[in-house]
Amino acid sequence: MTTQTGQVFTKVALIGVGLIGSSIAHAMRRGSLAAHIAGHSGSADTRKRAGDLGFCHSMHEDPLDATRDADLVVLCTPVGAFGQIAQAIAPALKPGAILTDVGSVKMAVLRDVGPHVPSGVHFIPGHPIAGTEHSGPESGFAELFDGRWCILTPPPGVDAVALETLSAFWRGCGSRVEIMDAKHHDLVLAITSHVPHLIAYNIVGTASDLEQVTQNEVIKFSAGGFRDFTRIASSDPTMWRDVFLNNREAVLEVLGRFSEDLARLQRAIRWGEGDMLFELFTTTRAIRRGVIEAGQDTPAPNFGRDAKKPRTTP
Amino acid sequence: MTTQTGQVFTKVALIGVGLIGSSIAHAMRRGSLAAHIAGHSGSADTRKRAGDLGFCHSMHEDPLDATRDADLVVLCTPVGAFGQIAQAIAPALKPGAILTDVGSVKMAVLRDVGPHVPSGVHFIPGHPIAGTEHSGPESGFAELFDGRWCILTPPPGVDAVALETLSAFWRGCGSRVEIMDAKHHDLVLAITSHVPHLIAYNIVGTASDLEQVTQNEVIKFSAGGFRDFTRIASSDPTMWRDVFLNNREAVLEVLGRFSEDLARLQRAIRWGEGDMLFELFTTTRAIRRGVIEAGQDTPAPNFGRDAKKPRTTP
Repeated sequence: MTTQTGQVFTKVALIGVGLIGSSIAHAMRRGSLAAHIAGHSGSADTRKRAGDLGFCHSMHEDPLDATRDADLVVLCTPVGAFGQIAQAIAPALKPGAILTDVGSVKMAVLRDVGPHVPSGVHFIPGHPIAGTEHSGPESGFAELFDGRWCILTPPPGVDAVALETLSAFWRGCGSRVEIMDAKHHDLVLAITSHVPHLIAYNIVGTASDLEQVTQNEVIKFSAGGFRDFTRIASSDPTMWRDVFLNNREAVLEVLGRFSEDLARLQRAIRWGEGDMLFELFTTTRAIRRGVIEAGQDTPAPNFGRDAKKPRTTP
Repeated sequence: MTTQTGQVFTKVALIGVGLIGSSIAHAMRRGSLAAHIAGHSGSADTRKRAGDLGFCHSMHEDPLDATRDADLVVLCTPVGAFGQIAQAIAPALKPGAILTDVGSVKMAVLRDVGPHVPSGVHFIPGHPIAGTEHSGPESGFAELFDGRWCILTPPPGVDAVALETLSAFWRGCGSRVEIMDAKHHDLVLAITSHVPHLIAYNIVGTASDLEQVTQNEVIKFSAGGFRDFTRIASSDPTMWRDVFLNNREAVLEVLGRFSEDLARLQRAIRWGEGDMLFELFTTTRAIRRGVIEAGQDTPAPNFGRDAKKPRTTP
C-alpha cells in the first residue's frame, strides 16, 4: 500500500466523532496529517468519551468553535443532520478552507449542504467505502481506510488544487481515491451497500417475526449463514435510516431489480429448475474471486473469523 | 467447550470427502473416535487429492467397499445423490450399524434414503450447522464443528442406544447436539440458512446484471456491505442447487414472508417513513447481540477479518 504522510493541514475539524470521525483522527495521527484536530459532538456524553480517548486535540460543544480557522472541515454525523450543521458552521468557514463529508449518499449532500457554503470555500463531498458494524468514538481505529476506496464527488468547476489536496489527505489516511459523479455514486452504492444492508435488515426482521421458529432457534442455528446478515443488520440505525431516506430513487430502482430477480429464483425453485439455479450459483462464485483479487476481502474461509485455517493431517 | 474423546467406532465410512467429510475425518482423528476411517469419492481426481492429504486410512472407488464392516456410515455428498447411494450401499450395511448423513435438508433424506435401509440398521439423519464457502477435500479442518450445533432428526422408534452413540460421536467432534423433528428442522434451516443463501446469490446476480454499474465498480466498492454477500454466494453450487430442490416447501414459505416484509420496507422508503425504518434497525441489533452471546459469532468488528481491533490513541 502506498500512503502519503506529512502534514497536510494546520487544523482539521471533525464534525462528529463516531466510528468514521474517530477513525479519521487516528489515521491523521498515524500519518501526521494535521497539527491540530478539533472535534465536535452535540452530545455531552460523546464529548466526554471522545475527550477521554484523546484522539482530538480539542473537543467542542459548539460546531462553530471546532470549525473556526480550520483548513479542512469534515462532516461525520449521519447525513440527515448535514443541512442544519452546514447552516450553523457557515459563518466560521474561512476562505480557502475545504469542506467535505463522509456521508454514504452524495446527491442529497449537494442538495442539503451546497446552498450554505460561503463563496471562497471549496466544497467537495466524499465517501470513504469503509466501516464496521460498531459505532461510537470507541470503535474507531487508524487502519479502517487502508486499501479501501474513498469516492470524491466534486461539483463542476471545483478548484483543482483543493481537489488534489483532499485526495492527498485521503491517501495519507490509507485510502485509494476515485472521482465520480454524485448521481452515479448513489447508484453504485445502492447496489454495493444500501440494498445489501436493506435485505440484511429485512431477513433478520423476518426471522424474528416467524411464529413457527423461536428467536432462540434462529440464534442457535445461525452459523448456517444467517449470522453474517446479523452483523450487517447491527449497523447504526440512525445512519442507515438517513441513508434510505436520502437515496430513495436509486435504492428503489435497485430494489425493483432485486425483487424481479428473486421472483425468477422463486419460480425456478417452485418448478424444480435445477439447471437455472446451478448456473446462477456458478456465476456468483466468479464475482467473489474478483473481490478477493481486488484486495477488498480476505480469502480465508468464513472471513477468517475463527482464525483457523484448513490444514492437512500428517 | 466439552468434547468427549476416546474410540467410539471401529470403522467409519465417509461417503463423500469434501469440506464436511474431510472435516469429520480431521475431527475424528483429533478425538481418536475411530480406529479406521474409510473414504469414498466417485471422482478419481478427488480420491487422489484426498489420498494425498491422508485424512482417511483407506480410499475407495466403490462405496460398497468403504461401507463394508463399518459401524458408522456418514453420507457427505450433496443431498441429490443420497437416494442412489443408499441403494448402492444397502447390501454392505451391517446389522447394528448406524447410517447417518450431513445434508442440509432432512425430510427429503427420510424420503430418499429411508426406503433403502435394511432392517437392523439404525438410520438417524443429521445436520451439522457448520461450514465455510470453500469446498473440496483440501478445505476441511478439525475445528469446523467446535461449538456449533449438530441437529439429529431420528425417525420415530429409533434405538435409544444408537442415538446416544451418534450424539457422543458428534460431541467428540466438538459439536453440541440437538434433537429435532425433520419437518421443523427444514423450516428452521430455511430461515437461518437456505433463504439467506438464496438472497445472497440473488443480490450478487442482480449486481452483475445491472447495465449502469460495471462489474469492476461492484467489486472495487464492495467493502460497503456487498462483499459479505459474495462470500455466501460462493458456496458450492451443486450442494446448494440440491438444497433448494429438496426443501422447496419451507423455502417458498419463508421466501414469501421475506418478500412481504421487503415490500413493506420498500413502501416505507418510498413514503419517507423514517420511524418505521429506525424501529426495525434497532430491533435487529438485539438479534446480533443474541448471536454473539450464544457463542455463534465473533464480536470483533467485520468478523475480525482484518485482524485489527479498535484501540485508543495514547
